[in-house]
Amino acid sequence: MWAELRPIGRAACSGGYRRFAWTGADADCRAWFEDQARSRNLAYEVDRNGNQWAWLGATSYQDVAPGEAVVTGSHLDSVPDGGAFDGPLGVVSSFAALDELRERGARPGKPLAVVNFGDEEGARFGLACVGSRLTAGHLTPEQAHDLRDADGVSLPQAMERAGYDPEAIGPDPDRLARIGAFVELHVEQGRALALTDDPVGIASAIWPHGRWRFDFHGQANHAGTTRLVDRRDPMLTYAATVLAARERAAAAGALATFGKVAVEPNGVNAIPSLVRGWLDSRAPDQDTLDAVVTAIEAAARERGGHDGVEVVLTRESFTPVVEFGHALRNELGRILAGGEPEDGLVGAPEDELAGAASGERPGGGVVRGDRRAVPVLGTGAGHDAGILSGSVPTAMLFVRNPTGVSHSPAEAATEDDCVAGVTALADVLEGLACR
Amino acid sequence: MWAELRPIGRAACSGGYRRFAWTGADADCRAWFEDQARSRNLAYEVDRNGNQWAWLGATSYQDVAPGEAVVTGSHLDSVPDGGAFDGPLGVVSSFAALDELRERGARPGKPLAVVNFGDEEGARFGLACVGSRLTAGHLTPEQAHDLRDADGVSLPQAMERAGYDPEAIGPDPDRLARIGAFVELHVEQGRALALTDDPVGIASAIWPHGRWRFDFHGQANHAGTTRLVDRRDPMLTYAATVLAARERAAAAGALATFGKVAVEPNGVNAIPSLVRGWLDSRAPDQDTLDAVVTAIEAAARERGGHDGVEVVLTRESFTPVVEFGHALRNELGRILAGGEPEDGLVGAPEDELAGAASGERPGGGVVRGDRRAVPVLGTGAGHDAGILSGSVPTAMLFVRNPTGVSHSPAEAATEDDCVAGVTALADVLEGLACR
Repeated sequence: MWAELRPIGRAACSGGYRRFAWTGADADCRAWFEDQARSRNLAYEVDRNGNQWAWLGATSYQDVAPGEAVVTGSHLDSVPDGGAFDGPLGVVSSFAALDELRERGARPGKPLAVVNFGDEEGARFGLACVGSRLTAGHLTPEQAHDLRDADGVSLPQAMERAGYDPEAIGPDPDRLARIGAFVELHVEQGRALALTDDPVGIASAIWPHGRWRFDFHGQANHAGTTRLVDRRDPMLTYAATVLAARERAAAAGALATFGKVAVEPNGVNAIPSLVRGWLDSRAPDQDTLDAVVTAIEAAARERGGHDGVEVVLTRESFTPVVEFGHALRNELGRILAGGEPEDGLVGAPEDELAGAASGERPGGGVVRGDRRAVPVLGTGAGHDAGILSGSVPTAMLFVRNPTGVSHSPAEAATEDDCVAGVTALADVLEGLACR
Repeated sequence: MWAELRPIGRAACSGGYRRFAWTGADADCRAWFEDQARSRNLAYEVDRNGNQWAWLGATSYQDVAPGEAVVTGSHLDSVPDGGAFDGPLGVVSSFAALDELRERGARPGKPLAVVNFGDEEGARFGLACVGSRLTAGHLTPEQAHDLRDADGVSLPQAMERAGYDPEAIGPDPDRLARIGAFVELHVEQGRALALTDDPVGIASAIWPHGRWRFDFHGQANHAGTTRLVDRRDPMLTYAATVLAARERAAAAGALATFGKVAVEPNGVNAIPSLVRGWLDSRAPDQDTLDAVVTAIEAAARERGGHDGVEVVLTRESFTPVVEFGHALRNELGRILAGGEPEDGLVGAPEDELAGAASGERPGGGVVRGDRRAVPVLGTGAGHDAGILSGSVPTAMLFVRNPTGVSHSPAEAATEDDCVAGVTALADVLEGLACR
């Protein structure tokens, strides 16, 4: 089955990883999900927000007692020209982990589900995690109805064309109440695991992050005739701010990026009247983030004073820190490090499980009790798990990405590491569901 | 008539100074030109390239003996959101100068013409001086036919819609052969005259200038998760290059501007894969320009090496220095400084002319023989006069611009200075045509 892992994720979905919500490529991904569910005799359902669910040990969420379900999954949509792993690895690994549990002969005492959240990347409508936000009530149906793509197609129109009912969308607290734990496996979007030489890690938190728009107002003038000393060129202030952002972030252990810029009039022979640059900044904690953005702003204003350029700063969005619950995170750590789970294992004997797992591991033969501690790491990226963490106990597993690249075809994970991820997820599901 | 000068240029042309070639606003400007010609009983004609001509002392260029015509004029089209003076001041001043000659009772011995060259700014089709380039044979009809505007409308389509014949366009050597001198009056696009406190100056040369495209190739990645040390962020290299360009140009007495930039994918949370920046650079001489661009390129490559970013440099266009002929330039200097023209004046007695001129001058009462030397200055801007200078003796007069701003509504000229410009132009036409 492992050999199928990567081709399945790829071949089943058309479009070369331009899988945008409610498009044909998205429909192909959804059909693949339904096939995977049905071929395993899992109960398949689609919730009011278009998220797909596949149940083991229940025919629907309505069968499940409050707080009983152990859910795993991720998303199948992609950013433009995204990689093969961001999203699909979590969904594919979820099905593979269920297969692994079956092979182990595990007998889960709790219902298990695999979920595919819709429109996580927000590539089409500009807002990330629409499926989980609606479900958790962080996005109202009215707000969702106002979303439009670049062609002016509204979210309701897009859902209708894809065969879904946009009038049904909204919060789903009853469904969420059945979930006792949600674990999302995701390819790492950085190189922390590559540096520590671990195939799998556990998420500690999603860093606080935000977007700030810097408007640099100068004076339009002729590039061929205006003396340098007479200029009020906002491109200079922008450039100095870009460099200051990198310096300030590096000094503080934070991230700061100017990835988007708009210039007026944007003519080769015209000193711009306006340069607009968007800062994306993230840090391990709120105080650091505040300090970095304040320092960048100060650098922009100082240079602006020198250039005769007015700087106007607008915070366009902000997400506070998401700290994954310590209880579930610690339990994952114990399970993956081979410690005894609190409530004891139900299922196959420990040695049998260890053999099944270690056989595929790089440098295999490690038995569960000997495993080294699993790294716990923060991430700057948003996830459905971050959205749900306010409603249900939530954790994340990361699989090593040797390139550290994400949102790009250069995103990578070795087959060995994908196997290690599936094994770890199977261990976690077994540990949580067989308690 | 002076009180009418500025309102005429403004009121007659609709569109708030977005006068692009072959649009309705351009047609209004052209209708205004024809009205001005006909109301003065000047012979009106449109040449094969759509340039408008108004003749005094000839019914058409065909009446004129080779090298006899003294021509003045400029253009009426504008850059986007351009000022009131760039172009129109030269055309309005040309008609006003003819009126001034009539008031003086001057009797020109040579045919005079006012010309409005089409599409000087290139705001619509991206190439400047299309009307004069076609006429001078610097642009072939085939090349012109390939020009398209931002909406995909071709130049021939646009000309046809405006009622002109695009099949007729091409070089016009026979017309140019009739011209003995072309003098273009233009608002100064800088503050040299403001600094020397002179209302009018003479052009020495148009600086060599060019456009270079810098492609900064980095690696697309997630702005929220990629460690700073793992990035290959081309925005950093771009920013450092922008600042280096300013420094190098300032040190060399040249100009360098990054006014246009394009980013891929240009997403707030995406480290760009590509930043493309266009450098406009100009200098008083070729060696200086070469040295500045080489130094900017070196700075870009050095920073690119540091950032892991590949720098690819492409020269997109280049115009060598245009040195206006010394003979005509010196003759203008003698005329405006009040020296005796070589061939003697025909027309009103010298004292009468001096009184007519000085009466309107700030700090008037200066008589011609006492006038101070007129400043001679280079310019970084291209002009129809620069295009024609290869075919006919050409000179330019600049009128003081207190703001130094151009290609912007902040472009300015006082009424006194406009009057001084008209007087100087009338002196020049009289000096050249009445020899």
